[in-house]
Amino acid sequence: MDMKIALAQYNYKIGDIRKNADVIIKAIQEAENQKADIIVFSELALCGYPPYDLLHYDEFIKACNTSVEEIKKHTQNIAVILGLPEVNPNIKGKPFFNAAFVIYNGKIIHKAYKSLLPDYDVFDECRYFEPAQEFKIFVFKEKRIGITICEDIWHIDNESLYNIIPMEELKKQAPDLVINISASPFDYTQQQKRYRIIKKNAEKYQVPIVYVNQIGAHTDLIFDGCSMGVNKNGHIISLCKAFEEDMVYCNPFETNAHITLDNIFEQEKMSLMHRALVLGIKDYFDKSGLKKAVLGLSGGIDSAVTYALAVEALGKDNVFGIMLPSQYSSQHSIDDAVALAENMDGKYAIIPIENSFNVVNNALSDLFAALPNDITEENIQARLRAVILMAYANKYGSVLLNTSNKSEAAVGYGTLYGDMCGGLAVLADVYKTEVYQLANYLNRNGIVIPENSITKVPSAELRPEQKDSDSLPEYDILDKILFNHIENALTSKDIYALGFAKETVDKVLKLVAFNEYKRFQSPPVLRISPKAFGSGRKIPIVANLIFGKL
Amino acid sequence: MDMKIALAQYNYKIGDIRKNADVIIKAIQEAENQKADIIVFSELALCGYPPYDLLHYDEFIKACNTSVEEIKKHTQNIAVILGLPEVNPNIKGKPFFNAAFVIYNGKIIHKAYKSLLPDYDVFDECRYFEPAQEFKIFVFKEKRIGITICEDIWHIDNESLYNIIPMEELKKQAPDLVINISASPFDYTQQQKRYRIIKKNAEKYQVPIVYVNQIGAHTDLIFDGCSMGVNKNGHIISLCKAFEEDMVYCNPFETNAHITLDNIFEQEKMSLMHRALVLGIKDYFDKSGLKKAVLGLSGGIDSAVTYALAVEALGKDNVFGIMLPSQYSSQHSIDDAVALAENMDGKYAIIPIENSFNVVNNALSDLFAALPNDITEENIQARLRAVILMAYANKYGSVLLNTSNKSEAAVGYGTLYGDMCGGLAVLADVYKTEVYQLANYLNRNGIVIPENSITKVPSAELRPEQKDSDSLPEYDILDKILFNHIENALTSKDIYALGFAKETVDKVLKLVAFNEYKRFQSPPVLRISPKAFGSGRKIPIVANLIFGKL
Repeated sequence: MDMKIALAQYNYKIGDIRKNADVIIKAIQEAENQKADIIVFSELALCGYPPYDLLHYDEFIKACNTSVEEIKKHTQNIAVILGLPEVNPNIKGKPFFNAAFVIYNGKIIHKAYKSLLPDYDVFDECRYFEPAQEFKIFVFKEKRIGITICEDIWHIDNESLYNIIPMEELKKQAPDLVINISASPFDYTQQQKRYRIIKKNAEKYQVPIVYVNQIGAHTDLIFDGCSMGVNKNGHIISLCKAFEEDMVYCNPFETNAHITLDNIFEQEKMSLMHRALVLGIKDYFDKSGLKKAVLGLSGGIDSAVTYALAVEALGKDNVFGIMLPSQYSSQHSIDDAVALAENMDGKYAIIPIENSFNVVNNALSDLFAALPNDITEENIQARLRAVILMAYANKYGSVLLNTSNKSEAAVGYGTLYGDMCGGLAVLADVYKTEVYQLANYLNRNGIVIPENSITKVPSAELRPEQKDSDSLPEYDILDKILFNHIENALTSKDIYALGFAKETVDKVLKLVAFNEYKRFQSPPVLRISPKAFGSGRKIPIVANLIFGKL
Repeated sequence: MDMKIALAQYNYKIGDIRKNADVIIKAIQEAENQKADIIVFSELALCGYPPYDLLHYDEFIKACNTSVEEIKKHTQNIAVILGLPEVNPNIKGKPFFNAAFVIYNGKIIHKAYKSLLPDYDVFDECRYFEPAQEFKIFVFKEKRIGITICEDIWHIDNESLYNIIPMEELKKQAPDLVINISASPFDYTQQQKRYRIIKKNAEKYQVPIVYVNQIGAHTDLIFDGCSMGVNKNGHIISLCKAFEEDMVYCNPFETNAHITLDNIFEQEKMSLMHRALVLGIKDYFDKSGLKKAVLGLSGGIDSAVTYALAVEALGKDNVFGIMLPSQYSSQHSIDDAVALAENMDGKYAIIPIENSFNVVNNALSDLFAALPNDITEENIQARLRAVILMAYANKYGSVLLNTSNKSEAAVGYGTLYGDMCGGLAVLADVYKTEVYQLANYLNRNGIVIPENSITKVPSAELRPEQKDSDSLPEYDILDKILFNHIENALTSKDIYALGFAKETVDKVLKLVAFNEYKRFQSPPVLRISPKAFGSGRKIPIVANLIFGKL
């Protein structure tokens, strides 16, 4: 065998440097037992990715350095490729490097720094890191090895955010192998895209590539792994599992044997979303040291899907659903919510809010004089539900899960401090039409989400006979307009041109713009699409956001 | 006279490109009437700074280009230096340049691009802009003029985030004058700092500098202007007002006459904070097309100061205070709140929450069985107050102002969806000890804030006999620890070394870390310090944030 490389795909916790070091040392020992020559960890594995401004605290960097000394002791018989932040020793330039250390026999035998620093969407690496200026390979067991870090291999086409092509620089030194350590977040387009880039690099530069990604969720960002070894023909030799910790071994110089690509990556968007969301919920709780969730059950599709995902992530004994009917709630809402909880053998309670609603209205009656009912009274109901849900969360040490979907979040069809509350927004990157698809997917082996929650007309039930379509276009139209505006960054004229009615487009874009202030106060959103609300979409709040009117 | 330059210091609205162009054209006409040779506008004046991801919308850039054509028509007799975004025509590199166009006689006679792109604290310019690679001066009326953009002149010491010194590059071409167009946000240290940098550049390179900054607030960021002309000896020749629109004329080649520096910049921190906060409130409302604010009055110092600032910014008829006493509120709280409103001849109402609190507790009694009262019941009170306040805001089209101070925001001494609600957090960058100073400042010409609100022991009044100091260190200790941790980025050991008790420091840092999730959902915070909560401080939520324990 030419070389045995361990692809170490683990789930790290940001800032828990000592615990991450333990994970790393344990993996080294295992790979050493398996007689691996090299073990490769993902980008910034030691501190967790993304560390954000924690980098600026001295003790954070000191803790990394201390752990490197510990890790060195375990490198007698195996070379370790470790991702970590390093202080830039120069007086000029950004304060840190996004580094890979090659540690062998107790010594750091090589260092590589990231050159292409992503600073778009959810990425902000120019905030911290100085780009690599030098590109050097190292020799280990007679193989010439180059190291790249994540984005470094993504500049392969002419059009690019960057002026340098790290692979071209490395190629000049005739590497036998290129290793890429990554922290490449999941979205439902990403697995195929990632493989295409790796394959393209292998083929173009005729070099095998060992690619190691992390798994696990960090608040909003979900990492799906899929680490792989690819030979110089671009064929996958070894592949780690998606969404799970895994360690596989790989001889990247093997040219014959390869895994056929048919179905090697999950093709079903709902299956991908489902796994990502369950992992997102699970890690939010696990890494926060929390166990229990509570959520409001309306009988509608969003809360039903959130409940089912939470039960899968946390266990049915750790999820509590509360139905909070008002005088405007229909009997089927309670029935559907109860059916959901019972389908899953889950825990729930029913707490009517009618009395609370009446007392609050009464307290306001002087101030409101005889003004007619309007959105105010609808919001009071939503907010009283939040008071009850948060009271339960506080009393029992639970986290309230937010059940808003992306369509609602986009157009502001939700009450700030009401149904927009929660520690984590589970579905706020999933359009309403996708929530239906996800419900059907969850029902693939038998009914979990009650059929009635799927088939009935969506309603907030905050006034008599209310339907979502009173205020909004039908969701199949709405979601297409939103996708073109948010994911594709199109504005009004370009969306009219796709065949949507001007009046509808104008209304939707105005709602999106007007509700920026609401989304600013949203809980963190589990990101499963290429353009989620949250840190990846920075829009000013106080501004003129209606471009059609410019 | 050598040259007459107009320093055009205006208040722009982000995205309102047509209106900004109108402001610009009107200023050009005025300066032309005054026979100015050149008029200088601030950084990204045409689109407003910071535009964030609006740049990615085609129509945004198209609107800028359209307005440039309009502006060109007004440049027959005067050269216009205009800040705006320009699309990077190269297929490689970031999509835009942060540009300055020199427009004269209907033509763009020169372009300069920003070279040093700040990407720290509240800045994220690497997300959008490709740095300048070339540094060229232009000649106008026989003067050799170099243009720099904001950060470009801040690299003057050896230690720097950058590897290039734009002033060194320009110096090689022997400029007679350097113009700097800026969008330099206010904090209470900034005016002196800015002048020192400008002076240092003038002295070092022996060249006059014309510096133009914008004024006005954009949600959280407040810009204070203080545009100035400095001669080659570093003396200020002309100076625009702070916090106000202004246009002054300047002959930068004048070497004799200069303004003496004594007291030219406001030295009093409270005066600066006061002006900044009033402008921050005013522009949040003006630029959102809103007029009316509502806030809860507790009788305490934070709500009193917020009310007084809001009355100053919006007028007393546009600010409504609501007192929301519970069974735990003392009579002096109501009296002090009433005294405040009456001192300012302001509007208020009293709405007791006792009945609502009892009904909600009753609704929860089965679920809570016989569990003892705890923080849950305190939070219910705070959240019911928010329900009432938001109901008023919804019914009357008002914005709820948040009254949390920075000390509370730091340690999470506030209720999410309760007193943490609001459209804008007015004081959340002002430590509690500074709120007292601000109250005394507001009383400088007579009592506005009732003495009793200043002198009484702080209490949330959410349970009998409660005092803030039951849960927190005394504020003078707390604020010093917080300042060292937040502003100075020190962690536990370094703070012990300053003489604070280990137990207190550990407790405070743990509270700061634990409450990251609350601050994530905070309203935007008016930034008045060098390190405010919000976009300038990016900390992961799910992470191990207690570095002392690493």
